[in-house]
Amino acid sequence: VKTILINIGNELLIGQVVNTNASWMAEQLNRAGFNVDEIAVVGDSREAILGILSRTNESFDMIIVTGGLGPTKDDITKQVICEYFETHLVFREDAFRDIEMLFAGRGFPVTPSNRKQAELPEKCTDIPNTLGTARGMWFEKESPEGHLARFVFLPAVPFEMKAMMEKEIIPRMKGIFRPQAIVHRTILTQGIGESFLSDRLEPWETKLPTFITLAYLPQPGIVRLRLTGKGDSEEEVTRAVDEEVKKMVAIIPEYIFGEDEERLEEIVGQLLKEKGMTLALAESCTGGYISHLITSVPGSSAWYRGGLVAYTNDLKAGMLDVRPDIIEKYGAVSEPVIREMVNGVLEHFHCDAVIATSGIAGPTGGTDTKPVGTTWIAVYVPDKLVTHKFLFGDERERVIRRAALQALNMLRKELVSIR
Amino acid sequence: VKTILINIGNELLIGQVVNTNASWMAEQLNRAGFNVDEIAVVGDSREAILGILSRTNESFDMIIVTGGLGPTKDDITKQVICEYFETHLVFREDAFRDIEMLFAGRGFPVTPSNRKQAELPEKCTDIPNTLGTARGMWFEKESPEGHLARFVFLPAVPFEMKAMMEKEIIPRMKGIFRPQAIVHRTILTQGIGESFLSDRLEPWETKLPTFITLAYLPQPGIVRLRLTGKGDSEEEVTRAVDEEVKKMVAIIPEYIFGEDEERLEEIVGQLLKEKGMTLALAESCTGGYISHLITSVPGSSAWYRGGLVAYTNDLKAGMLDVRPDIIEKYGAVSEPVIREMVNGVLEHFHCDAVIATSGIAGPTGGTDTKPVGTTWIAVYVPDKLVTHKFLFGDERERVIRRAALQALNMLRKELVSIR
Repeated sequence: VKTILINIGNELLIGQVVNTNASWMAEQLNRAGFNVDEIAVVGDSREAILGILSRTNESFDMIIVTGGLGPTKDDITKQVICEYFETHLVFREDAFRDIEMLFAGRGFPVTPSNRKQAELPEKCTDIPNTLGTARGMWFEKESPEGHLARFVFLPAVPFEMKAMMEKEIIPRMKGIFRPQAIVHRTILTQGIGESFLSDRLEPWETKLPTFITLAYLPQPGIVRLRLTGKGDSEEEVTRAVDEEVKKMVAIIPEYIFGEDEERLEEIVGQLLKEKGMTLALAESCTGGYISHLITSVPGSSAWYRGGLVAYTNDLKAGMLDVRPDIIEKYGAVSEPVIREMVNGVLEHFHCDAVIATSGIAGPTGGTDTKPVGTTWIAVYVPDKLVTHKFLFGDERERVIRRAALQALNMLRKELVSIR
Repeated sequence: VKTILINIGNELLIGQVVNTNASWMAEQLNRAGFNVDEIAVVGDSREAILGILSRTNESFDMIIVTGGLGPTKDDITKQVICEYFETHLVFREDAFRDIEMLFAGRGFPVTPSNRKQAELPEKCTDIPNTLGTARGMWFEKESPEGHLARFVFLPAVPFEMKAMMEKEIIPRMKGIFRPQAIVHRTILTQGIGESFLSDRLEPWETKLPTFITLAYLPQPGIVRLRLTGKGDSEEEVTRAVDEEVKKMVAIIPEYIFGEDEERLEEIVGQLLKEKGMTLALAESCTGGYISHLITSVPGSSAWYRGGLVAYTNDLKAGMLDVRPDIIEKYGAVSEPVIREMVNGVLEHFHCDAVIATSGIAGPTGGTDTKPVGTTWIAVYVPDKLVTHKFLFGDERERVIRRAALQALNMLRKELVSIR
């Protein structure tokens, strides 16, 4: 089944609105076993809409269109649809009754422009919309070359479109096309770049069965590895994908921190909670970003006590008892200093675990021996202190983000290894 | 100029990634005076890429493609490009030198898969990428019907793509196509919702000349107001837009904090710098987010001393000398407590200005008298303390963001008013 999503709307073409409808639809279709082969966005103009309908009729089996169905003046889709399918609008009593009920429920009378919403092309199957006035429309049409395509038109209002996809469109598609089973698993890695991962995984990757594919999805500081299997039996595909995940994990265990949509700060929070431990921070170069990540997790007050952002040397001395002569001798970005920062946190914050960071986020402040990006990270869990130096590149935002994720992953590893 | 954006990536077709690249590119092109006529998303397959390149060659003038240029095996775009443009890959010394420099800066050796990134199609113009290893490629090709189209291929990594669009692609397009004069001015507001703004601005908005339009661009905590004028004479359009901006500013002066791409944390930093003042923070509900915003600005160590994230009451007491009986009597989320937090910061952080926050970010912790979203903010500048209570709604992420922006804007207003 070749499927295309078409989203109509000028607001998408000027970048005013991000196309989250398309990603939601693609995800749902994928879960239901349908590949989406293309997504297209065009403007609210007759030429653009006619153009894309003609083009897709021959080459796709299922054409799902959103947008342009509201009652306001810039929504011309319905007229263009009639032109393309060589039909005309007729007033449908049953659709109008639904609209009347909807307005009665809201305590409003039906306005003339909303009455118009019950006018639908004669040739289409009416798709009910229980949450709004714009109806869905389902057409079948043979291309000039004789290929039969299904077209469906839905409103772009997200909650209306979503309900119609789930209740009407996907069930109809399943009845017609009987989709293949698709299984995804996404493994999350931290602390290793895409190209290094690829070098490590290549021997295994080349031996993957043909029905399983691997994709690298990099984000700043994190690379997600997605395995996708396709086949007739969901059970068999799942088993095969799980087996390959196991092999992959065995190659790079030290970099894997989670799966699917998990976030490192959530995993760390969960581990702290399980172990009944609390955390506090001393941040220098990360400037509060680790604290922000941790407190973005609901419930984090159960395991997070707080942190000091010590952006100056005298604060490191005054609030964390870092000895000024140590800073003088080794510099603020040094192992002795982060060790003292950890001790200061333990002394003042009454916590079980500690993260401390000190680095040069840039763009200025680098030297020959300590270039921009040089970062010391310390992680403490009871009776164990781990310190490490990193080079995180020369772009401020990335240095901060990579340092924060690295620190959280170091803490995760230590928490996991506690019996 | 007919322009299409093509985003290549299976992750977009399964809905794992939202296509924010397309909306960013569309917005930038629009600002530069170019309409985007279509956005298309296709998968990482030879057929899909060849198909869309052939289809667009005849009907578009400018074809901007992102994705599929990483060093890993799922990135097949470069091979397909060679096939389509009837060329082959050659190793380019100058591109490789840039890659070597990039890796040297990070302290890594260049891997074989990264060396491959310096292999580019012989027929293309190499577009430098100062932030990553994937080069951009610019081609010109006549369609079989004789229409000349420009194709450009960019990596999909957002910060690399953005830099290349701004520094290379848009300037080249301006040189070739000479777009209509488009003048944008974006006014930034904080502390007022879109519908309230709209009610205030309506009488003025309805009288705008037809060649000037107003768009509301809401973000969490901020609403951007963009005025766009189009015409033949840049000078005249600029004058007319400036005049309308002046009228608009006069209607809502108290909510405006800046213009265009300015960020509140930059403006605050600039003001502190001008006045030779330093800042420190005591954050509770904002959890380090204000500190993160401030330290995301390069050079912030000149005006930022640091901050305490006090997520527990005993830290407020132990580190900021907040009296436990005050917390007991009024609760942590109260005016007396943030007043004491300010005093504690002044005592321990040796700074000129202070921000303190205490609130209930949710989802739990709300009561009848202090529902989720209740937030006290205090701002101190020499000899003046301002405190205020806000209700920021019941969504954790938004409460944190709105509280942080509100606090920064309160500080900005106080700094501006200092003579």
